[in-house]
Amino acid sequence: MSELNHVLEFLVRDYECDMQGVVNNAVYQNYLEHARHEFIKTLGIDFAEMARQKINLVVVRAELDYKQPLVSGDRFRVATRLEKISPVRYGFIQEIQRLADGALVLQGKIIGTALNEKGRPRLPKEIRDAFDR
Amino acid sequence: MSELNHVLEFLVRDYECDMQGVVNNAVYQNYLEHARHEFIKTLGIDFAEMARQKINLVVVRAELDYKQPLVSGDRFRVATRLEKISPVRYGFIQEIQRLADGALVLQGKIIGTALNEKGRPRLPKEIRDAFDR
Amino acid sequence: MSELNHVLEFLVRDYECDMQGVVNNAVYQNYLEHARHEFIKTLGIDFAEMARQKINLVVVRAELDYKQPLVSGDRFRVATRLEKISPVRYGFIQEIQRLADGALVLQGKIIGTALNEKGRPRLPKEIRDAFDR
Amino acid sequence: MSELNHVLEFLVRDYECDMQGVVNNAVYQNYLEHARHEFIKTLGIDFAEMARQKINLVVVRAELDYKQPLVSGDRFRVATRLEKISPVRYGFIQEIQRLADGALVLQGKIIGTALNEKGRPRLPKEIRDAFDR
Repeated sequence: MSELNHVLEFLVRDYECDMQGVVNNAVYQNYLEHARHEFIKTLGIDFAEMARQKINLVVVRAELDYKQPLVSGDRFRVATRLEKISPVRYGFIQEIQRLADGALVLQGKIIGTALNEKGRPRLPKEIRDAFDR
Repeated sequence: MSELNHVLEFLVRDYECDMQGVVNNAVYQNYLEHARHEFIKTLGIDFAEMARQKINLVVVRAELDYKQPLVSGDRFRVATRLEKISPVRYGFIQEIQRLADGALVLQGKIIGTALNEKGRPRLPKEIRDAFDR
Repeated sequence: MSELNHVLEFLVRDYECDMQGVVNNAVYQNYLEHARHEFIKTLGIDFAEMARQKINLVVVRAELDYKQPLVSGDRFRVATRLEKISPVRYGFIQEIQRLADGALVLQGKIIGTALNEKGRPRLPKEIRDAFDR
Repeated sequence: MSELNHVLEFLVRDYECDMQGVVNNAVYQNYLEHARHEFIKTLGIDFAEMARQKINLVVVRAELDYKQPLVSGDRFRVATRLEKISPVRYGFIQEIQRLADGALVLQGKIIGTALNEKGRPRLPKEIRDAFDR
């Protein structure tokens, strides 16, 4: 059984910070997306290849709890766990933690589905397989 | 009593679209933020001026329900409503609607607070006044 | 003969500003791109439609002279002029001007071409026609 | 004498790609900026700290030659070299190379200066020292 867990380390880039001197709220979604896409690659799912095949992995809901801001120079880790929600929906439980002190930066829950070329929800085999492993 | 409602129109820009040919998930947070900042300006609150005074308006939670994607060329409207949640928290109820057909694109609830220079939550007078009007 | 000139007005959005409190350098390229895409639409060329047809309009060189920074709340205008450079290359001469005082913010020259599905440079008929008008 | 050279490796993130399925033109400026800021850190200059001290490192001109697009999954390297241009100006010669095949992706020349609180150009001691080493 493959682990449905994944951890990826990042470094804040200065262009991601806004006039408050902290990472802008929207940028955390970029971090979370990148972590999810790297994670699903380890399950054999390539987001870009899916898009070319007109199978669109889409987010249907995002819940984000902002706990502490990241600032220039911060290193952090995005931990991602995948869980099945329904035959056509999956959830990513994601957490951002600052490396220097282990502070919790953000907790997120991202619910997604996959839409085939007709716009019908249908999970790709690789995701269904992952849940069965 | 001033209306705690605001509507702002936008046009999708091509650089906001990702390889699926739709507006990237994170970009909706940019739209919502811009709409909120334009809204609070009508209440006498300038986000940039606040930041210069070291009063930081911050988001503590975001809930985003993605209903329909926006694509290149779409015009849309962000409607924003402000409500008091507690003495130190406020909520923005936001909705994105595509202009061409009125389709609901996204529903969001953004909970925020204001932190003074010491990092203590304290709503600026202009927001408290807005709630009292 | 259609005018090979175009002007588009924008408002700085707070998320476009970085920790220096000014619009981040890279964001000006977003502004310029959006202005170019709106401009070529008036010539009958839709960037997104081209991309779907696998005709890729691409930038081969950008020269950007930063004169004055834009800050939160600034309204500005992007003026764009199109000129033919060679049978397969065109140039956009672009200028950003702050509305409040007419200050010159940025001068840019963006050289582009169009690549067909085989990656060969070939200008679309609409652009060639525009030059012949 | 410290080397005025620096190399940083990156991985394309999917949100950086646009509807053509390639990294958007503006995003390369993000890459270049991040590489420059990491480079100057090795010279003892922290961009964020400078900004807090109201010494603003600013770009006055950027020249970017786009050679090959990067796509989802590409790993690449940004090589940066710093050279003195005048008592108040410095230039970064930057090159992006795809790791898989060594293809040249982009060549850039970024000319910058530093402005003190009064907006007068004046290079910080650390940069002047770097040139003298």
